[in-house]
Amino acid sequence: MNSFNPNFKTLMGPGPSNIDPRVLNAMARPIIGHLDPQFIELMDDIKELLRYAYQTENPLTFPVSAPGSAGMESCFANLVEPGDKVLVCINGVFGGRMKENVIRCGGEAVIVEDEWGTPVSPDKVEAALKTHPDIKILAFVHAETSTGVCSDAAALAKLAQAHGCLTIMDCVTSLAGVPVLIDEWGIDAAYSGSQKCLSCPPGLSPVTFSPRAIETIRKRNTPIQSWFLDLSLVMDYWSGDEARSYHHTAPINAMYALHESLLLVRDEGLENAWARHQTHHEALKAGLEKLGLTLLVEEPYRLPQMNSVLIPEALKAREGDIRKTLLNEHNLEIGAGLGALAGKIWRIGLMGFGASEDNVHTCLSALEEVL
Amino acid sequence: MNSFNPNFKTLMGPGPSNIDPRVLNAMARPIIGHLDPQFIELMDDIKELLRYAYQTENPLTFPVSAPGSAGMESCFANLVEPGDKVLVCINGVFGGRMKENVIRCGGEAVIVEDEWGTPVSPDKVEAALKTHPDIKILAFVHAETSTGVCSDAAALAKLAQAHGCLTIMDCVTSLAGVPVLIDEWGIDAAYSGSQKCLSCPPGLSPVTFSPRAIETIRKRNTPIQSWFLDLSLVMDYWSGDEARSYHHTAPINAMYALHESLLLVRDEGLENAWARHQTHHEALKAGLEKLGLTLLVEEPYRLPQMNSVLIPEALKAREGDIRKTLLNEHNLEIGAGLGALAGKIWRIGLMGFGASEDNVHTCLSALEEVL
Repeated sequence: MNSFNPNFKTLMGPGPSNIDPRVLNAMARPIIGHLDPQFIELMDDIKELLRYAYQTENPLTFPVSAPGSAGMESCFANLVEPGDKVLVCINGVFGGRMKENVIRCGGEAVIVEDEWGTPVSPDKVEAALKTHPDIKILAFVHAETSTGVCSDAAALAKLAQAHGCLTIMDCVTSLAGVPVLIDEWGIDAAYSGSQKCLSCPPGLSPVTFSPRAIETIRKRNTPIQSWFLDLSLVMDYWSGDEARSYHHTAPINAMYALHESLLLVRDEGLENAWARHQTHHEALKAGLEKLGLTLLVEEPYRLPQMNSVLIPEALKAREGDIRKTLLNEHNLEIGAGLGALAGKIWRIGLMGFGASEDNVHTCLSALEEVL
Repeated sequence: MNSFNPNFKTLMGPGPSNIDPRVLNAMARPIIGHLDPQFIELMDDIKELLRYAYQTENPLTFPVSAPGSAGMESCFANLVEPGDKVLVCINGVFGGRMKENVIRCGGEAVIVEDEWGTPVSPDKVEAALKTHPDIKILAFVHAETSTGVCSDAAALAKLAQAHGCLTIMDCVTSLAGVPVLIDEWGIDAAYSGSQKCLSCPPGLSPVTFSPRAIETIRKRNTPIQSWFLDLSLVMDYWSGDEARSYHHTAPINAMYALHESLLLVRDEGLENAWARHQTHHEALKAGLEKLGLTLLVEEPYRLPQMNSVLIPEALKAREGDIRKTLLNEHNLEIGAGLGALAGKIWRIGLMGFGASEDNVHTCLSALEEVL
């Protein structure tokens, strides 16, 4: 068994995305202590850069020291108490995972379902909020990674506010790819992942909590069931004062990488990043259409960074082989369908550093050759 | 705000430890997908190398995708059901954290306490096991990072077995620094951290579970409260078969680093690594004594990799300044005392890559200058 030397691959699946060499270099810098004053400064910088990425003033905006699934759990475990009613919108895999989280926190999940490939219906949500006036939290996925659908977060958040609910929003795939406007929309808790449009290695989950969410956590009647994710403890480590109390050892080098990737986002500017994702999405779509391929999602709800391509009937039997050929002969990874869409779609990502003309060409020419 | 360029520092605190450049280089290699066949091979290699480090045949031996605190929680959340009685040995900070975990899982913690700086007393444990015949799990810290004490894991595990209990062992600081013999001792669940004697960046927590622990998890009456840490799901991702089911996105580049650091352990050989820690510990101790400094822990229980130095009365008032001077003028980090030992001890680590003659000299000459 020898050192691991992976082939370079073009990652155009649902994430992780390829990483800018600047970010990989940053990660390989010498380690310092997690309570070192230089590291505390880095933490402050990361919080400020994340507030920009999330378009929020929330003081409690930081990366959870674990992947997106733990960021999700951090939102639910802190905000949901046993017996709480949570309205969960399911239109793909990750809405289903939210439901799991509610149940494991002892909450009661009220479900609004929409067909996979379509957005969450604000009408259905409104009806459910009217039927269940005791709902405490509305939880929905902004950008469903399993389908490539963008739901109308502004409309959903507005409904939640009108009914006195908190909101939890999954923006794992949306952050830095399409507008995520935490304060403008009035979202109370959101989580993302480092490995999608931030183009950082996986392993960190940026989260943000509104003052209202923090107040809710502070007023809990029951202890938070997770020690690792207990925000009342984590806050003391990520808080603004001089004396940071030790909670856990942060993944220091991963933080270097996140910092560098957030600098790249800041330097480009969010508006430019959103526009770049849209431009390359349109080029990809045009090329796919020339190959006779169509997208699952209707135009107004399409995520530019996550393109679900319907697999033509004639190719379904060998869809796995096609992905294997792309990977082995073209060093190109595209994603398979998940759950209800397994075998029916391919998922082609154009995320962050990977949302480029080069990648669009690489993908289209490889697909043309293989199909 | 610019790219982060930390000064190189000699890390001789309680962890993280300095990292071999080979490991940092490995981490900066190009990212591949978390379901890529090359990555699956890497996962298999990591499992095999971890089994060597833990001296176990346990098939379920893998790194949790988060820091040691999450590894701890993974052991408790999966093995403890509401109402279960767990005997927790507390002789430092991390035993206290085990108790917190038991309570948050709905378990009942029976406590055996020993003075900080002394090992867990097998006699007290035996008495408690006799008093409470319904105890399901014995939980103890092998190497208390907060004090530098090594407890007699073999004796404690034997008692647990004699009373029909499972064991959970914290070996965050012991793994690869002193013998950790999971199978010989008959430990059922153990967790460690990547950033101590493995000299890897923090962010991963190697765990191992015995077949008896897995059977206990499979027979649970209640669901595991954490989705992220639910071993019945994680197992499907880390299992041996061809079809790995997606659970979460593993921290891919961090896994490259762990793999490389485990290769270094294998190449040196565990026995040699243990001997190296002991050799440099003895040199450090001799040098400290020449400076008039003594160790907190009695000789038979001292961890070579974690040296708790009693701060002389005359220096207590400026102990924080001394650490600051070491950091700012000598680029040397040593650790402060925690909890009951805050202000009373310094913690000097000689861990993994940092257990070297150079580091012993660096530390002793800096201390000599500053004191």
